[in-house]
Amino acid sequence: MDVDRCRRLFAEARRAILATVRPEGGPHLVPIVHALLPDDTAVFAIDEKPKRTQRLQRLINLEHDHRVAVLADHYDDDWARLWWVRADGTASAGEARRDEAMRALAARYRAYRERPPLGPVVIIEIDRWRGWEAAPPPPRIIRPG
Amino acid sequence: MDVDRCRRLFAEARRAILATVRPEGGPHLVPIVHALLPDDTAVFAIDEKPKRTQRLQRLINLEHDHRVAVLADHYDDDWARLWWVRADGTASAGEARRDEAMRALAARYRAYRERPPLGPVVIIEIDRWRGWEAAPPPPRIIRPG
Repeated sequence: MDVDRCRRLFAEARRAILATVRPEGGPHLVPIVHALLPDDTAVFAIDEKPKRTQRLQRLINLEHDHRVAVLADHYDDDWARLWWVRADGTASAGEARRDEAMRALAARYRAYRERPPLGPVVIIEIDRWRGWEAAPPPPRIIRPG
Repeated sequence: MDVDRCRRLFAEARRAILATVRPEGGPHLVPIVHALLPDDTAVFAIDEKPKRTQRLQRLINLEHDHRVAVLADHYDDDWARLWWVRADGTASAGEARRDEAMRALAARYRAYRERPPLGPVVIIEIDRWRGWEAAPPPPRIIRPG
């Protein structure tokens, strides 16, 4: 799958799965709702303000190792319709590009328009796209004249 | 979410996402079609026989680090319907429990009944369940008499 199609499928997917690595080793997974900014940067937000007593595992992991993978996919019992797209990159949480990220997320998710997330924004700089689909998209028929 | 509900949602999910860790570090993600055996063992299969020239990244990773996470989830734009279940464990690929795994996979997936996978079976011994859902299931109404 070419990179443009990876980007488009990823950008349109309603949710993705974030993988990080725990400080003690071993992978960690959690679903995210995301947006893709024009410069191969994916973003998601933490809903609640961080509390000292309860830090999210995904943020603990990111402080220890910035490397992430994010996967968007489609499943269908007709396996001719399967596809997945994976973005590999590095991520950090903070306030960088918060306004831009929030606008992109609010444009995609009504729940965020109604109640904006209060926690930090996670910025993922994507440095590799991989994708696979069982069947290519139907050809575009270009009629002459 | 209690462990029995984690097990049920995971067992019924049509696909899950497998996370492993690369030998050089950094997470790796791929969707899988899976079955849950009665003893907290999840299984999936590799479709094709391994070729020396093209080894799958997930198998390379497992040889280096057996720790995995597997996530099943449901997304809906109505965020009151969201849920996810994560199984953390250790995995290895080979021929162990192949017949049992193949029976369980074939029972779930027609495509596997029509064309059984030829590659190794991956056995995941789950040692921790985690789950979250936005809303609890509706109460069962028990009528007297």
